[in-house]
Amino acid sequence: MTVEFISVGTEILLGNIVNTNAAYLSERCAALGLSCYHQSVVGDNEERLMETVRLGLSRSDILILSGGLGPTKDDLTKEVTAKVFGRELYEDEHTKERIKEYFRRVRSGQVTPNNWKQAMVPEGAKVIDNHNGTAPGLIIEADGKTAILLPGPPNELMPMFERDIAPYLNQLEPEGIYSKMVKICGIGESKAETMIADLMDAQTNPTIAPYAKTGEVHLRVTAKAADEEKAKELLSPVVDELYQRFGDKIYTTEEDVTLEASIVELLDGQGMTVTTAESCTGGLLAGRIMNVPGASGVYREGYITYANDAKERLLGVKRETLMEHGAVSCQTACEMARGAAKAAGADAAVSVTGIAGPGGGTEEKPVGLVYVGCNVKGHVRVEEFHFTGNRDKNREYTVARALTLLREELLKNCKDLQNGDQP
Amino acid sequence: MTVEFISVGTEILLGNIVNTNAAYLSERCAALGLSCYHQSVVGDNEERLMETVRLGLSRSDILILSGGLGPTKDDLTKEVTAKVFGRELYEDEHTKERIKEYFRRVRSGQVTPNNWKQAMVPEGAKVIDNHNGTAPGLIIEADGKTAILLPGPPNELMPMFERDIAPYLNQLEPEGIYSKMVKICGIGESKAETMIADLMDAQTNPTIAPYAKTGEVHLRVTAKAADEEKAKELLSPVVDELYQRFGDKIYTTEEDVTLEASIVELLDGQGMTVTTAESCTGGLLAGRIMNVPGASGVYREGYITYANDAKERLLGVKRETLMEHGAVSCQTACEMARGAAKAAGADAAVSVTGIAGPGGGTEEKPVGLVYVGCNVKGHVRVEEFHFTGNRDKNREYTVARALTLLREELLKNCKDLQNGDQP
Repeated sequence: MTVEFISVGTEILLGNIVNTNAAYLSERCAALGLSCYHQSVVGDNEERLMETVRLGLSRSDILILSGGLGPTKDDLTKEVTAKVFGRELYEDEHTKERIKEYFRRVRSGQVTPNNWKQAMVPEGAKVIDNHNGTAPGLIIEADGKTAILLPGPPNELMPMFERDIAPYLNQLEPEGIYSKMVKICGIGESKAETMIADLMDAQTNPTIAPYAKTGEVHLRVTAKAADEEKAKELLSPVVDELYQRFGDKIYTTEEDVTLEASIVELLDGQGMTVTTAESCTGGLLAGRIMNVPGASGVYREGYITYANDAKERLLGVKRETLMEHGAVSCQTACEMARGAAKAAGADAAVSVTGIAGPGGGTEEKPVGLVYVGCNVKGHVRVEEFHFTGNRDKNREYTVARALTLLREELLKNCKDLQNGDQP
Repeated sequence: MTVEFISVGTEILLGNIVNTNAAYLSERCAALGLSCYHQSVVGDNEERLMETVRLGLSRSDILILSGGLGPTKDDLTKEVTAKVFGRELYEDEHTKERIKEYFRRVRSGQVTPNNWKQAMVPEGAKVIDNHNGTAPGLIIEADGKTAILLPGPPNELMPMFERDIAPYLNQLEPEGIYSKMVKICGIGESKAETMIADLMDAQTNPTIAPYAKTGEVHLRVTAKAADEEKAKELLSPVVDELYQRFGDKIYTTEEDVTLEASIVELLDGQGMTVTTAESCTGGLLAGRIMNVPGASGVYREGYITYANDAKERLLGVKRETLMEHGAVSCQTACEMARGAAKAAGADAAVSVTGIAGPGGGTEEKPVGLVYVGCNVKGHVRVEEFHFTGNRDKNREYTVARALTLLREELLKNCKDLQNGDQP
């Protein structure tokens, strides 16, 4: 079956917001085994919206429209789609109650009269409750075609899709689509693809689709099966095979676990704390770790030490080291990682020192040269990187590589412990 | 004139990448006075691409296609568009030389044979040099319709648009479009719009378009005029009027100056240094400041102090303060800002302490409660905020408000100095 997305909103046409909904829906529908050949954006204009809906229905089985379900007169998606399907609108009592309740709970106030417009739904449409806003989702079916209307705000659209739309799409075909996400760090995209080229060439069911993220590769393994049990039978051997090939580089097989969350879990499991000492990344590495709710259990303090003086005073980096080898050097990264752990009384420390650019590079130490140090219980490892992006990209990649290094060293520490070595 | 965007690439349809090019082109074309009613995404498929190009040309004056100009057989944008316009391809000597030179300079290697495909251009097309990659841009005109083909990577597309495409689009109409960006911090979008409602209602030429960013509002003032001089005459009084209304809240009228860059410039101008002490934002505030190339001149070190113990040891926050008022309190934010400046020997310090969520909230101190402290030469001001987003949003808004507070206090310090007060 084919799916097509229509994003409705003048604010997207004006470039006021980036269309992240389309990227999200694309990835999720691909994972559900639906083929998407077209996406479009159209403003809040009756005639153009109607044309676009008609064109979409003429060439795709399922149309997902997002946006334009708000309470104002500008919001036309529901009205126009109902017209195309030849349906009248009526006031849905259940939705009216839900909106009333929503206002009571969240806005602690009176419903504004134009919000009742959102309780109007097309005849025969399935009404999907919105747990994060007022506009309900709607599913309209006719003649083998389906239109799904979703609210535009991502924090309403995404939970609604996960909770109600994905299961609905999954039951449209006799065989459901089930997938497992295998997330890998520390291996580049092309190398990862080479390592599974034979699997990808031979694949029919399940299939493997690689997604490149900064410093990570995500492999989505997707199976068609009659039920979840059968899907598991198909997926498990492929996931096992991927573990055979990538081993420890796989940090999770859970959809919603990030690299930093997997690290916080590792630390937590070993009862360890971590600190950071950053130069060119200036707080971004700490910021990634602190993204994780509850990270405060394993991360208590960190240092941003751009100036040499700060590296000496806060981290105890030796002046001779800075004089002899420079601030951007393997030696300095090493002493930063040692000093940070000591200063914070932490079990582990990650240090970053480098030249993010655009200025500050020399022949000997060009822009993009970065050293990352990792200290786990006194064992320090330093890696040298040569990035080729702009300032932003270099810092982003540095953070990803620093997290990857920390994870590797924490895993080593785990194994040493299991082997009975002294930590 | 109307413009329409077609993004070509299966990776967008699969949700592998977010279509940031479309947002960029939308905003830039709106600023150039072009109306955009349609955007679409289509994969690397000859038939569907051809349909989409034909549809676009039937309803818009200018078509901007991005992506699908690569060297592989999958890349079809140029071939398909040339076919629609009935043009043959020929090998462009100039482009061939440029590609050779590019490989010599950047990749220090041999040109791979399939790269010569990128030197093939449609008859009669304008060829636009790509200074950041191999695929040239192309402009094809016929019968009052124009197709503009741009390479897909944003770091190639954006500089090419700024350098060659924007001026080309500007000369298509007898009157050019000129605009000025007025960036405001410390005022919400709806308040800002209310403050200029009369201007927006009365506007014809120039026009004012507001764009909401996290913690900021950007107003693009756009004029149609015969030349730059005349445009200036139209724009200046409007910009002056905006200064009358927003005063110091305007931090720049330059397109490419960020809030953090304006702050680094302020600090630099006053010969001052700044430091940061962060709890819930965990390095993100420092990261924003360090985004600015050359920030190392004004930012030398910073502290991430999540644990109470770290606040005491690194910043000298008193234990009694923490016991009596708690870590998330006005008093703690104040002592953090004082202690950080002292510890770093900096002239200014910004402190953040709050509850980002999802856990950690209480009846008395709910999730979203954040205190930001700002110390400029010993004068400390603390602000209390109540954010209502998720963890990410709360942290993002906190950073924006912290930067805004720092800027306000730095401006006050400027004025005090000008008024002859002792700093």
